[in-house]
Amino acid sequence: MLGNFEYCNPTKLYFGKKSILKLETELAKYGKKVLLVYGGGSIKKNGIYDEVVGILKKCGKEVAEVGGVMPNPTYEKLLEGAKAAREFGADLILAVGGGSVCDYCKGVSVSAHCKEDVWEKYYERFEEPDCRIIPVGCVLTMVGTGSEMNGGSVITNTAKKMKVGMVFGEEVFPKFAILDPEYTFTLPKYQMVSGIFDIMSHIMEQYFSGDDDNTSDYIMEGLMRSLIHSSRIAVKDPRDYEARSNIMWTATWALNTLVAMGKETDWEVHMIGQAISAHTDATHGMTLAAVSLPYYRTVMPYGIKKFARFAVNVWGVDGKGKTDSETAQEGLRVMEKWMREIGLVLNAGELGVTSDKLGAIADSTLITQGGYKVLTREDVIKILGESLVG
Amino acid sequence: MLGNFEYCNPTKLYFGKKSILKLETELAKYGKKVLLVYGGGSIKKNGIYDEVVGILKKCGKEVAEVGGVMPNPTYEKLLEGAKAAREFGADLILAVGGGSVCDYCKGVSVSAHCKEDVWEKYYERFEEPDCRIIPVGCVLTMVGTGSEMNGGSVITNTAKKMKVGMVFGEEVFPKFAILDPEYTFTLPKYQMVSGIFDIMSHIMEQYFSGDDDNTSDYIMEGLMRSLIHSSRIAVKDPRDYEARSNIMWTATWALNTLVAMGKETDWEVHMIGQAISAHTDATHGMTLAAVSLPYYRTVMPYGIKKFARFAVNVWGVDGKGKTDSETAQEGLRVMEKWMREIGLVLNAGELGVTSDKLGAIADSTLITQGGYKVLTREDVIKILGESLVG
Repeated sequence: MLGNFEYCNPTKLYFGKKSILKLETELAKYGKKVLLVYGGGSIKKNGIYDEVVGILKKCGKEVAEVGGVMPNPTYEKLLEGAKAAREFGADLILAVGGGSVCDYCKGVSVSAHCKEDVWEKYYERFEEPDCRIIPVGCVLTMVGTGSEMNGGSVITNTAKKMKVGMVFGEEVFPKFAILDPEYTFTLPKYQMVSGIFDIMSHIMEQYFSGDDDNTSDYIMEGLMRSLIHSSRIAVKDPRDYEARSNIMWTATWALNTLVAMGKETDWEVHMIGQAISAHTDATHGMTLAAVSLPYYRTVMPYGIKKFARFAVNVWGVDGKGKTDSETAQEGLRVMEKWMREIGLVLNAGELGVTSDKLGAIADSTLITQGGYKVLTREDVIKILGESLVG
Repeated sequence: MLGNFEYCNPTKLYFGKKSILKLETELAKYGKKVLLVYGGGSIKKNGIYDEVVGILKKCGKEVAEVGGVMPNPTYEKLLEGAKAAREFGADLILAVGGGSVCDYCKGVSVSAHCKEDVWEKYYERFEEPDCRIIPVGCVLTMVGTGSEMNGGSVITNTAKKMKVGMVFGEEVFPKFAILDPEYTFTLPKYQMVSGIFDIMSHIMEQYFSGDDDNTSDYIMEGLMRSLIHSSRIAVKDPRDYEARSNIMWTATWALNTLVAMGKETDWEVHMIGQAISAHTDATHGMTLAAVSLPYYRTVMPYGIKKFARFAVNVWGVDGKGKTDSETAQEGLRVMEKWMREIGLVLNAGELGVTSDKLGAIADSTLITQGGYKVLTREDVIKILGESLVG
């Protein structure tokens, strides 16, 4: 049953080829000082940096830069950005990159003028900001996290070996986001496929929770079918605009709060994946891929009807003459075939996980309550172990 | 292929049981003068009027009222409301009702301070407002139009026998909407079923256009499956909260602009239906039901692949061993069975259409360009004629 909820998503999106030209319209709404934030510098090679800086100059903006935001942005880096934004007096933070850069910029936006301990306030006590929030805009160059249209901000505390996701309210959502599917064409295949599974996992982790019959479940089945269909095309031809645009649009709706409205959600796969990243710095989507099958096989008996529905409605399994359990298992087998086909990492060993690290990763794993089974520490170790032989 | 688009939907939604209690939070954001607008007075019988007025008084608001908004709001009534809002100096227009009342309030909000001829500016030239817009809030009591989260405003000009839908930009969207599924429990079955088909038609008219493979199509298939499933439960037990809440939520997403992003849309069924209403004052959703099967049978040969997909993905038709045409036709047969099962009107004669009116209704019908076949006047007459024997 749909529980009570509030929904508001005010982010303005500009989607499509050459949508960067709309940046000018948005820049006119903010003051002179723009803090430009990006990652490892690929935008300097593919021309996006020059394009964005050109528009900023044309609009008469004064620009400061924070580069080198890493795939798993650290708390130290967050504090550096917050200091830079404060000292510069930024009127707008412009994120140019993927989910990591967007997540990072939201963290900076609420930290620049925060008087309290930022880690404790936002990433331990999960409090909303009560200081001035610097507006954030995004130019997306990589697809997966939905960060361009939500309040999510995942930050890694290396000292504490913790990778923690805070979900801020709509005041912290990006004010605007520019989504040009062609900006994702030059992304290495490993990153693209990792992003695709991140999207899949976002949907699955909201889908596999609760035994109700919500409109959200039907929407998610549609999103997953679209994603699976387009992923096969994109892997063969990364420059297929139709496939890349569908993946980009699916990513946004997979995690912009809509499909979670009024229902429980799980997120245990993300918790295990984030713990792996905290210990290995592995690529986010691949950590999810490596643990998903062992995880879902573990919880399946506790939510068998939903897994059977998933098999039929998402993977096209014919359920006739089969028990729910048989149908559900066949669904995961078809999913595994797809995962191997598009080139996902199914063995955590390839991500730097070794058997001596399992206990420590389990200790860093937050246990969520919304899935079909609340895991024990032993469950987490077993899942990680199965992934080492996956 | 997803074309370029801009998306922004800032309406804040409060969904669920007793969500009316959130009205107070919203009222605090606006000035003292609230223009309360409602329809035929059913809200005075079911207690919603008293509940809303109680909250307005508690919040110290000064209230003026416009009641008697009809199911097909007229241009004369719109001018009456605009005058009332202007003379009262309304700070907020509060719509309490269904889509007609919401549509009407949006029309009033852009007309109260408009210096030009309102009909010509908005409903003939389809221009955006350049005057002050009075903010609108909605308390929804009937489900179907999605008007609570979009810029739609359908108004009937009785003198011209025209029922015209203007779609305003996000500045005119309701600022907030309160959606309590229990508020729809007392609605007569005829109205409920009519609303259900209005939702179905919104989705179908956006789905049956273009031959691309968009994420939107997958989302729409999910929405339709959810709607069909819940409609069967709601018809048997109108007080089934799960079914009514799913229908309410599906209605919002069927027409809050999301599923139309980046794709062509049709809307010819709405054009014919609106022409019928302009000549007969028939209930909106029933006019759509009465012409849908003859319409889709007419255009099906021009979009056969999409109709076959619709049959398989929405209606569960087994396409194996069948031609696309056979699959597509079976899809419409299953749909007809569902339409009869839930009690829709399939014969336009029951709505007051007589064979001598067909030419005049066809003359009032706007011809759209986005469907699989651009209709001729003769096509419209043929479709209406088939509906008389439906």
